[in-house]
This record gives sequence, C-alpha cells and structure tokens, in this order.
Amino acid sequence: MVLSTEAIRQHLEQTRALVDAELERILPPAEEYPPSIHKAMRYSVFAGGKRLRPILCLEAGRLFSGDEKILLRVGSALELIHTYSLIHDDLPALDNDDLRRGKPTSHVVFGEAAAILTGDALLTLAFEAIAGAGDGAASRTLQVIQELAHAIGTLRGMVGGQVVDLETTDSTSDSARLEYIHSAKTGAFMRAAMRSGAILTDANQDDLTRVTAYGEKIGLAFQIADDLLDVLGSQAELGKTIGKDEQQHKATYPALHGIEASQRIASRLVEEACEALKPYGARARILQGIAHYLIVRSS
Amino acid sequence: MVLSTEAIRQHLEQTRALVDAELERILPPAEEYPPSIHKAMRYSVFAGGKRLRPILCLEAGRLFSGDEKILLRVGSALELIHTYSLIHDDLPALDNDDLRRGKPTSHVVFGEAAAILTGDALLTLAFEAIAGAGDGAASRTLQVIQELAHAIGTLRGMVGGQVVDLETTDSTSDSARLEYIHSAKTGAFMRAAMRSGAILTDANQDDLTRVTAYGEKIGLAFQIADDLLDVLGSQAELGKTIGKDEQQHKATYPALHGIEASQRIASRLVEEACEALKPYGARARILQGIAHYLIVRSS
Repeated sequence: MVLSTEAIRQHLEQTRALVDAELERILPPAEEYPPSIHKAMRYSVFAGGKRLRPILCLEAGRLFSGDEKILLRVGSALELIHTYSLIHDDLPALDNDDLRRGKPTSHVVFGEAAAILTGDALLTLAFEAIAGAGDGAASRTLQVIQELAHAIGTLRGMVGGQVVDLETTDSTSDSARLEYIHSAKTGAFMRAAMRSGAILTDANQDDLTRVTAYGEKIGLAFQIADDLLDVLGSQAELGKTIGKDEQQHKATYPALHGIEASQRIASRLVEEACEALKPYGARARILQGIAHYLIVRSS
Repeated sequence: MVLSTEAIRQHLEQTRALVDAELERILPPAEEYPPSIHKAMRYSVFAGGKRLRPILCLEAGRLFSGDEKILLRVGSALELIHTYSLIHDDLPALDNDDLRRGKPTSHVVFGEAAAILTGDALLTLAFEAIAGAGDGAASRTLQVIQELAHAIGTLRGMVGGQVVDLETTDSTSDSARLEYIHSAKTGAFMRAAMRSGAILTDANQDDLTRVTAYGEKIGLAFQIADDLLDVLGSQAELGKTIGKDEQQHKATYPALHGIEASQRIASRLVEEACEALKPYGARARILQGIAHYLIVRSS
C-alpha cells in the first residue's frame, strides 16, 4: 500500500507541471508594461523550486474531492507568496544571500530596489489571484485569505519568525526560541497551505484537525531536514549557499540537538504526520508518501 | 450649500479620529511577541498622516448608506497599505528618504531589515483585516480585495508606478510617462479606495462610474498638489524632505508644465470631480468639500 519513492517523485513532478502552467497564467507576461518588474517576478518564480506549498494545498483539497481548478489557483498563489518571502529574505539587509535555487538572487540580477518591489508585487498578486479564484463559496475564499494572511504575518507567522530569526545570533539559544522560529517562519505557512486546501472543500471540523496536524508536523520535519542539509548537503545539490547557518550563528536543530537526534526527531514527526491521516486509508497515500519523501533528501 | 473649509476640516478631523481608533483595534499591541515588529508597525502607522484613503472609502460608502462598521474596517486597512508603500518607498535602495510625516523614517529608526519586514507585515495585515471585515456579502468583499490588489500591483497600479518612477531620471521626460507614473503610483489606489467603499454598498453601475470618475480626478489633482508642495512648501509644513523631486530629477507636473499651468490643471480636475457627483445633490457635499480642500494646501 505504501507508494514507492519513485512513484511519489513522478507524482510530484506531474503536479509541479500543473502548478507551473497555472503560474504561467497568473503572472503578467514579461513584456507587459513596465516589463522590468514582470521579468523580475517571472525570473524568481520560475527559478526552480519544488512547489511544495501548492502541492500540499492541492493534495489536501483532493483528499476531500475539492474543485481542482480552484485548488490549483489558490495553491499556485501560495508559490507567489513563498517566492516573495525568499526574495525579501535574501536581500542584503536581511540574509544577504547571492544564490537561491542554484541561481543568482533577485537583487543580484535586478538590483535591490527592484527586488524589494518584486517581492511586494508577488505578495499582492497572490491575494488578487486567490480573491479571483471564483466559483466556490465566497465565504470559504475569505476564510482562506484570513488563514493565509495570518500565517504569513507577525503573530506566530512567517514575518514574526523572520524577525525573531534575525534577532537571534546565538546558535545555542534556547529551544523554545528555536521552536518559535521554525513554527512561525516555515511551519505556519505549510500548515495554512494544507488548511486552505481543505477549507475550500466540504471538509468538516475533524478533517480540518487532522489536516492541520499533518501540516504542522511535516512543516517542522521539513525545517529540520533543511537545517540538516545546510550542514550535510553540498552546494550543488542545494542550489543555495551552504554552511551559512553556522557562519551566521543561526539557531538550528543540529546546532542545538546534534545531527543524529535531529534526524530522529524529523523521522518521528513524519510518522506522526502519516498517522494523523490514517482515517482516510488509501486516499492519504500521496500525502503520506510526500511526508516521507521530504526527509529522504536529508538523510 | 457649499461647505466651508473649516467645516470640512472639522469633518476630516472627526473621521480621522474614527480611523485611528479602528487602526488601534486592527494592529497587534506593541508588546505582542515579537514586539520589535509591532512597535515598528505602530510607529509608522501612527506617525501622522491625513488618513485620506480611509476617508475616501468611508465617504464613498456613506454616499450609498453602506454599513459603517465594515466601511471603517476596510477603509482603515487602506491606511495600512498606504503606510507599507511609504515605508518601502523611503528605503535607501528606493527613494532614500530620512524624513516622513515630520519624523525619521522606519529604516532610520529600526534599521533596513526591520523596515522591509514592517512594510511586508502591514500589507499582509491589510488583506487579513479586509477578509475579516465580516457580515457583508462575502462576494463583495472578494471583489474589493481584487480591486485593491490590482490597484497596488504592477499593471497600472502602485508598484508599476513606482517602478517607472524609479526608472525615470530625466525630469523633462514626456508627459505620457508622467501621466502613467501619477495615475499608477497614486491615482489607482485612490480610485480603488473610492470604488471599494461603493462596492461594499448597494451602489449600482452608474454610481460606480461616478465614484470612479471622482476618484481618478482627485487622485491626479492630489498628486499635482503634492508636486507643487515639493516646489513651494516648507519642510516644516510638509513634514518630509522638500526639493527632493528636482534634486532627483523626478518627473513632476511643475517640471513639465510649469507652476501656474499645474495649478490650473489641478483646479480643473477638482471641478470635474465635483461635477461627477452632482446627481447626489447635498449628499455629495462632503466629498466635494474634500476635493477642494485637497488642493487648497498647495495654492
């Protein structure tokens, strides 16, 4: 019953192609005036990336037979938000990263002013795309917008996590702080990606609770895997500067708990995530496969 | 029948107090974790400002007896968006302004990284606040979100205008370009503020057309008045660095058309804006008064 890594890889690849085609439809053409910003938006969105958040949103919605078209639109908008956050995080004033997804970052290619505005534009376009996803019950769409905006905001959300991360320069800082950073910076948005997919369907409260548990657990597992990759991976594999966390004395799981314990924690989280979806039987196979796939990368 | 400047001033003052109280409710408390970002958000939002966009939204909605509570929430969210745009525009990489509304700009007080994230957080919170405005028909709220996101986006919207403005360093550049910058950078958002207020009510298509015309015309008049103030005003009055436009060879109305012609154009636009609302008789007195009040500042 468990899907092979290869089957999951293929499924992810197919879904990624759907998401990329939808992003192509959402983004203004590169030549649209003013072309510089539309080129910069497309450069970063199409610079690679696993489209993990769109896929989570889609798969969560598919679990409850949601409308594929709406799920694809909302899911793809999540990638716009994710890309905005990467562009701003990479800025000289923040993480000052030159390389992302194996390519020069936005501010390196287009300059700092353009990179700031490109992030702003992607965030804005995401909300426009979601609000225009159409057809479904409007009140569900509004709920999704609130859910997402909260998840990328300051209160245990992405921006809050980024703020605390920037203010944390002691890599052995306490684990409560590390927990906050991970859950706010990455976890909240992945949780919201899952919940958004489910909210757009006829999922009930119990469904939502299960999907939320899955989202929270793989969100954290993913972040730990990412921390591990920064220690263990090669720059070529990762497509971004490695060893930066330690260099910048970032709070990470390996720094606080050691490599092996971090791997164990990640594995346990994945098991728990899969367990949460057990009531759905075979319908949950894809999401369970994705959970395992996520940490294979780092071990 | 025409309201005195003093009556308008008083009315604006009262409405501003309502908006400020609502902003107080929308923004997380300064001590909420992580406090640095919430302090920075509040610093810029409460650094002054006329609350013009919220007031336009409110007054447009009042014209059609809209729900005061929803209008106030959505209108106040527009001020969050406006503040986000000011914080990002003032950044060293963009306009590099140290002074805004008479106070040191966000990046001067909190640093560049915090200023970028504070803008991001305000934009995000705005959409959350609008989506949660509640009660009204959800499909109207979604329409408002689309309308606003478009108005602050790249396609003849605020970010598009900012991009072209940054790319324009020749102050005698052609008037089509100047028109684009003004209409995209400021006009689109003021137009959307008016339309949002009306959309949240039972306004019909004709009403929307009139309100749109008013918004477009005063948006442009306001921008011309702002250009004129940069030439004629004193720094104390204006609360921001003056003479910057000329220094930076920005495209402006006075630079292209001269001071007197610019004043004439602004006056004509105000007359046309008032004319557009004539069918509403006395109900339009406030908005007509506001239109006149806007350019009094600069002549």
